[in-house]
Order: sequence, then C-alpha cells, then structure tokens
Amino acid sequence: MTRRINVIGIGAGDPDYVTAQAVAALNDTQVFFAPDKGAAKDDLVALRREVCARFIREPGYRFVELPDPKRASDGDYTQAVADWHAARADQWAQAMLAELPDGGVGGFLAWGDPSLYDSTLRILDIVAQRIDLTYDVVPGITAIQALTARHRIPLNDIGEPVLITTGRRLREDGLAGASVVMLDGDCAFLGCAPSTHIWWGAYLGTPDELLVAGTVGDDGERIASIRAEARARHGWIMDTYLLRPA
Amino acid sequence: MTRRINVIGIGAGDPDYVTAQAVAALNDTQVFFAPDKGAAKDDLVALRREVCARFIREPGYRFVELPDPKRASDGDYTQAVADWHAARADQWAQAMLAELPDGGVGGFLAWGDPSLYDSTLRILDIVAQRIDLTYDVVPGITAIQALTARHRIPLNDIGEPVLITTGRRLREDGLAGASVVMLDGDCAFLGCAPSTHIWWGAYLGTPDELLVAGTVGDDGERIASIRAEARARHGWIMDTYLLRPA
Repeated sequence: MTRRINVIGIGAGDPDYVTAQAVAALNDTQVFFAPDKGAAKDDLVALRREVCARFIREPGYRFVELPDPKRASDGDYTQAVADWHAARADQWAQAMLAELPDGGVGGFLAWGDPSLYDSTLRILDIVAQRIDLTYDVVPGITAIQALTARHRIPLNDIGEPVLITTGRRLREDGLAGASVVMLDGDCAFLGCAPSTHIWWGAYLGTPDELLVAGTVGDDGERIASIRAEARARHGWIMDTYLLRPA
Repeated sequence: MTRRINVIGIGAGDPDYVTAQAVAALNDTQVFFAPDKGAAKDDLVALRREVCARFIREPGYRFVELPDPKRASDGDYTQAVADWHAARADQWAQAMLAELPDGGVGGFLAWGDPSLYDSTLRILDIVAQRIDLTYDVVPGITAIQALTARHRIPLNDIGEPVLITTGRRLREDGLAGASVVMLDGDCAFLGCAPSTHIWWGAYLGTPDELLVAGTVGDDGERIASIRAEARARHGWIMDTYLLRPA
C-alpha cells in the first residue's frame, strides 16, 4: 500500500484563513512532519498547534520533528540549494518509512500556500522518486492576499500585470511595474524612486500585524525603522509589500 | 450608523476552498448584493447558492440582484471602464441605501480573491465617497492557487520571480519569464516558443475541471481544441495557465 502525504497550506498567520479543504486534510492526517523553521520556530510551532487544536476533531495525530540539515553557506547558491533539497529528501524518506505504516497518511503544514517560495513540493518530488509515495496539495491564503485584504486594495491595476519577486531580484532588476516583494531581508524598496507607492505588511494575519501605506520617499525610512524594531523584538520577521510606480 | 460591507473571496470554484474567515463573514451578512456575471451567470449563481446553503447557519439572509449597466464597447478602453465603474457605483449606492438599514451589513461574494482582476473594491471605493460606508476584505483561494495545487507544482522557480498577466499583455509583451496568464479568451500561449512549458486548467475546483500539462509545441493545439469544445458545451469558460520558458 502506498503512503500518502497531504501538503496543507494553512494560510498566512490567521487560523481563520484555514479552508474547509484544509480542515478535511488535517483530519485525514495521522502524522505531521515538521521541518525546522529557524528563528521563527517558536511562533510557527504555536500557530501550528493552534490550527491543529482548533480544527482536528479527534486528536489521534502526532508530530514528528525534522531537524534542519546544514545548508552550505558559501559556494554556488543553486548547487547549495540542490544539495540541501537532496539531504532533506533523504531525511524525509527515512522518516516516512519509519513513522508511517504502509497506506498511512502523513502531512506537512505550509505557512501560506505550498506553491509560493516554499520548498516542500520540490523535496517531496525527490522523495517520491525514492520511496512509494503519492501526495496532494491543498492551497492556502498567501501573505500577498493577506496584504491586499488588510490594506483593502486590488493587487493589479485594471487589466495590468503584477510581478511577484524577491528583494534580491528587485535590487538587481529595478522596478519595472507593479510588484509584490517577498523574502526581502534588507528593505530593497529604499532603492526605488521616492514617488513609488508602497503598501507594506508584517506578521500579517497575526495579533502582531503591522501595516503601513504611503510612498517610498515619505514613508520608506519609517517602514525600515518599524521593521528593524519589530524584528529585534520578535527575533524574526516575515513581511511583504506591494510597489506601484507613480 | 454606518453601513458595513463584507467583500468575501469564496475561492475558485470548490466550496471546500472557503475559509473560516469567509464563513464568519457569510454569517455576519444580511444582504448579498449580486452583480450580474454575464454568460457564466447560471453556474456562478449555483455556486453562490451552494456556498451560502452549506456555510450559513441561520438562513435569514437574502440576495439583491444588480443587473449589469451597459459598458461602451467602442472608444477608449480605460475611459469605458471608468464610466462603467461610475455607473455601477451609482447603482450600488442606491441599492445599499434602499436595501440596508442604518448599521446594516451587506456583502459581495467574489469568485477567487477580491484583489485579483476583480472590480468590486474599485467600485466600493467610489461608493464610499458617496454614502456613509465601511468595508472589509476577506481573501479567497485564487484560480492561480487552484492551478498549482491541482498540478502539484511550485509557482516560482527557486528564488525567481513570476509574472501575473493577461492574454492581451502576453501577446503585446511576449514571454520574458515564468508567467501566469489570466483573462485570456484567445489562447495567447500559441504565440510562445514551442519549447515553452505550459500547465493549463479550466473550471478549476469544480466537477468540470480540466487539466493539461506539457509544452506549447506538443500540447498547445490540443489545449486550444479542448478549450473551444468545453466553452461551446458550457456556454462560458474560465481558465488560467502557467508558462515557463524552457
């Protein structure tokens, strides 16, 4: 019997973002595999526990922690990521064989949506080449959607495109049109024209949520200082923002 | 007392995509305002009814239909859209004053997420300049997320950007990198290099869902013919696809 894995998007922070489909998948899962998430770990563990406690009707499930294999910090970035994925795949395959019976159902809880800047699907793809495994994906509300909902704004201008990108790529490529920036540890928006509109949010959907809307010229430095202060206080930060050229 | 409006993303087709937050907003709403949706109307009305019947605990709510004002089909596109938004705003303001008591709570159900290629927020912004009104936005699972979940693929390459765009803009701008295309009535993907990877989906999250993955060269014409046949049979189609240059 094939082992089955649910990759469950639980939304960006607010347990109320959990979908009916995710609730069904949570209740269908016997073992949750929990990769280590670094500095944000304690808060993410708390969110995970809250989601499971609230939505799982018969608590027979258990968690299996998967400590993070070391990622090479020097050398080629793409190669380092590929090596890290392969190391994780080995670890996950062993854990699934050890912790799940034949025909058993495991799960991964993904912050936001499993398709967006998340490596779970890539690693499972490698695992499925090594052991007999199928997996299903349950979409979840992303930080992008939490950002636009909380600011009550459309993502796109009428009929116009919008780019989803990273802080690194914004610095390298510049701002060519409406862009959502994720994974920016370094306030790349400060390099944009002062007239650029910015809608910024951090810890979206949580009680610690921070929102600022304005322009890079008027509000960019203020956002950077709010961000630095919050990061120091929490020990970690997850933030995202929408930029629109004037 | 101010009237309050919930703009509720109900996800892309599958009632299981509805979030706990959307369920709370559905139950908080007295009057659902239902703009006409053209050819897809009957199927969208059926989905709306199914969502309300399933998730609303005390059915004291009612629907108020808002017939579509005519949109000018010639002349400047941007001006025609602006005029149409203004005409809708007049109509919506009148309907809210007539149908909602002071302090009452109205709602709009948005297919997918209200922030993505949807005019509800733009029109409400105009309405709120005319009558005393506040509104909240509840995010929903988009067709993009349904597409990647059903194909079980990441949206982005590792650390790379992805563009959300339209069929018209794909034809005008060409394919510069990974792109999700929406609002494409005309199979703009056929203009891309034959080696381009495509993951296509229609009626996502519904029992009529169609999925094809391949390349433009090997599978593009097949997708176009599946699309034409399905559109003729249903009388409408909603589809979206992810393109990735080889």
